[in-house]
Amino acid sequence: MRYNYIRQLADQWKLVLGSKSPRRVALLKEIGVSFEQIIPPLEESRQAGEPAYLFAKRLAEDKALWVVRQINAGHVVIGCDTIVVLGDRVLQKPDDETEAFEILSILSGRMHVVCTALALVKDEKLLASGYELTEVFFNPAKAEQIRDYIATGEPRDKAGAYGIQGMGAFLVDRINGNVDNVIGLPRTLLNKLAEEVIAKSNHSR
Amino acid sequence: MRYNYIRQLADQWKLVLGSKSPRRVALLKEIGVSFEQIIPPLEESRQAGEPAYLFAKRLAEDKALWVVRQINAGHVVIGCDTIVVLGDRVLQKPDDETEAFEILSILSGRMHVVCTALALVKDEKLLASGYELTEVFFNPAKAEQIRDYIATGEPRDKAGAYGIQGMGAFLVDRINGNVDNVIGLPRTLLNKLAEEVIAKSNHSR
Repeated sequence: MRYNYIRQLADQWKLVLGSKSPRRVALLKEIGVSFEQIIPPLEESRQAGEPAYLFAKRLAEDKALWVVRQINAGHVVIGCDTIVVLGDRVLQKPDDETEAFEILSILSGRMHVVCTALALVKDEKLLASGYELTEVFFNPAKAEQIRDYIATGEPRDKAGAYGIQGMGAFLVDRINGNVDNVIGLPRTLLNKLAEEVIAKSNHSR
Repeated sequence: MRYNYIRQLADQWKLVLGSKSPRRVALLKEIGVSFEQIIPPLEESRQAGEPAYLFAKRLAEDKALWVVRQINAGHVVIGCDTIVVLGDRVLQKPDDETEAFEILSILSGRMHVVCTALALVKDEKLLASGYELTEVFFNPAKAEQIRDYIATGEPRDKAGAYGIQGMGAFLVDRINGNVDNVIGLPRTLLNKLAEEVIAKSNHSR
């Protein structure tokens, strides 16, 4: 498949997904590439004045660079970071149910932006990175509904304390943008970055 | 869960999904309701001058009414129909690979509307029905890319000859609207219709 640069990348080098997320694993498996999974340590914090989307990109890059140092040379690592942005506020994964409740109360009835950043790294060198934005419009939710949603356990490991799949489907009215991006792995962006990496590697031969 | 009217419906009556689609089955299972599945016969054709969205609604209603006649009284049947609409043209499931190629060539680089209609029927009576619309923007695709996609087998049983999951993710640039709706079962609409049915049943007691 010529247009599937991700598969081409996986054929050429060993691919490593630097992420814990079972949802990212599922999206990547769906396109039929084989890869390993290595989980990078927990995220850093945003620097003063750092724009939200660049923060996500830096995290994706740093995660990929961390993973690449744990493995043999010649592997391509995909680093990922997903953040939920409301105004200039970045809402990451909730620490506990109280925080999940706060986050979901803030998102209720409003539009926020989901940003997933990706970075491709090989031999400690950043080859390509970028991010994708999707607007997500939440239905208004009552406190009781939010508590019920938290009881499902779904908010626990998710940026913005929700997933667009599962019971989270009731929270979301509509989205404007790429669906994969909200789940955590924008495959068209990954494909574009893979194309860049392949073009560079052909050029340097 | 008070806001999960679908579950409330499933607790009160036996639920039957009148659809063949494994994707609808997955979406309904994800919200933790138990249901049976009965597959209605193949679809009818659009009447002269019939508006596209009303055609989908009629099909969803007719499918549910067909299924309800095969089973015991007191069950609630969910009828579904998904169509892809370009202008006033309705693109249904492709009959073969040639038709799949034609449909995907038409959709390439353009915006189309996905309409999923749902109908809830009990004891041969239509209780509630409606439809949801989502705009889907396709990337421009080369003939070769379309052929590669057809070779995956994904277009076969899908309205508009594509699925937004799997390899179809590369075709879609972005959507404007509800995600479930594109997959074939808009759960927020189903929830709203379930709420109507429950309200009516409480009223008639």
